[in-house]
Amino acid sequence: MSKNIAVILSGCGVFDGAEIHESVCTFLALDKAGANYSVFAPDMDQHHVINHITGEEMDETRNVMVEAARISRGAINDLADFDADDFDAVILPGGFGAAKNLSSFAFDGAEASVNDDVKAALQAMKREGKPIGALCISPAILASVFGDVLVTVGADEATIGEIEACGARHQVTGNDEIVIDAANKIVTSPCYMLDTSVKHIAIGAENTVNALLDLCA
Amino acid sequence: MSKNIAVILSGCGVFDGAEIHESVCTFLALDKAGANYSVFAPDMDQHHVINHITGEEMDETRNVMVEAARISRGAINDLADFDADDFDAVILPGGFGAAKNLSSFAFDGAEASVNDDVKAALQAMKREGKPIGALCISPAILASVFGDVLVTVGADEATIGEIEACGARHQVTGNDEIVIDAANKIVTSPCYMLDTSVKHIAIGAENTVNALLDLCA
Repeated sequence: MSKNIAVILSGCGVFDGAEIHESVCTFLALDKAGANYSVFAPDMDQHHVINHITGEEMDETRNVMVEAARISRGAINDLADFDADDFDAVILPGGFGAAKNLSSFAFDGAEASVNDDVKAALQAMKREGKPIGALCISPAILASVFGDVLVTVGADEATIGEIEACGARHQVTGNDEIVIDAANKIVTSPCYMLDTSVKHIAIGAENTVNALLDLCA
Repeated sequence: MSKNIAVILSGCGVFDGAEIHESVCTFLALDKAGANYSVFAPDMDQHHVINHITGEEMDETRNVMVEAARISRGAINDLADFDADDFDAVILPGGFGAAKNLSSFAFDGAEASVNDDVKAALQAMKREGKPIGALCISPAILASVFGDVLVTVGADEATIGEIEACGARHQVTGNDEIVIDAANKIVTSPCYMLDTSVKHIAIGAENTVNALLDLCA
């Protein structure tokens, strides 16, 4: 029986939404492993829109779910409709959207608030003993929601400090590495929190996805 | 010596820009093969902006190069500055942007016009005997520019008819397959012109990239 995995995206583009390479490499790893995946995003305005060439804010409003649908080729679901009973695991690729749209971690660090639908989805999965994966900066959301879990975001001291201030434990990692919190069924990998290239994103995502599938009951 | 490959994008999102999975899988195949890549796009407005959930046009204006930079994480070059001397090969991922922004093939078929900078870049590469790759619908651009070349866009009869009306020859292909026009150093693969999934996009892009690199002098 194929596993059904939910992927939560935060927009479309590293600086204001979901990191595109991490998102596609997550889909690719799931497809290669024979898992089905369904994509979710909150139906809400992005925190802001960034011109990815200049890094400057643009005078525009974009919707997180509408933009995330670019990465999923139109197949997307409102995160408000997420039902943990339908899925064996959930995974969150990274990108600043995880820390600007799905949570306020980019601005508030350990004091961040997490979007209600994101929080509800993650809490429901954990309550049902189902595994959760997170790439790049998204493990910060898990630290915000769950407190005492073991995660990695790579080696950035400032980010690690905020994650530990949430009550979470952090393990430093390099390219391709994952950290498994077996007790809480959480798998994380640093991906673009390191200065790296897309082949390492593919390996990190694949290692994370394969460990996540192994943790499915 | 690592090869330097130019990747030409047409926006960000299958319905009005570059197909994201094909673009990322092209980067991934190049990185895995040890090639360097530089991303280019024309600095021009998109033909239109499509809501990727509903398929409807949005009342917005977006710039092809600015949006394409989302896929390349900000690292992008104006196609007007392209110099064939700097590259060993060029590759065009697909998506409707290739047929709406880089050319008018989606609207005009065999009578399509091709963006001047796209045409100049492709003609310069061919003049220098350097290989050209194209995925999905992008081989239609090669048919428009060069006429008598051998390409594939999969198995869609209507599209094949327009490509043949350009004076090009077409070879029907399935998942993962590529077509090599050795005389013209052109490599093409159908990717999402077929009803398929991302693991086959990764294989099709990798097969195309590896054949392209083999054709480099």
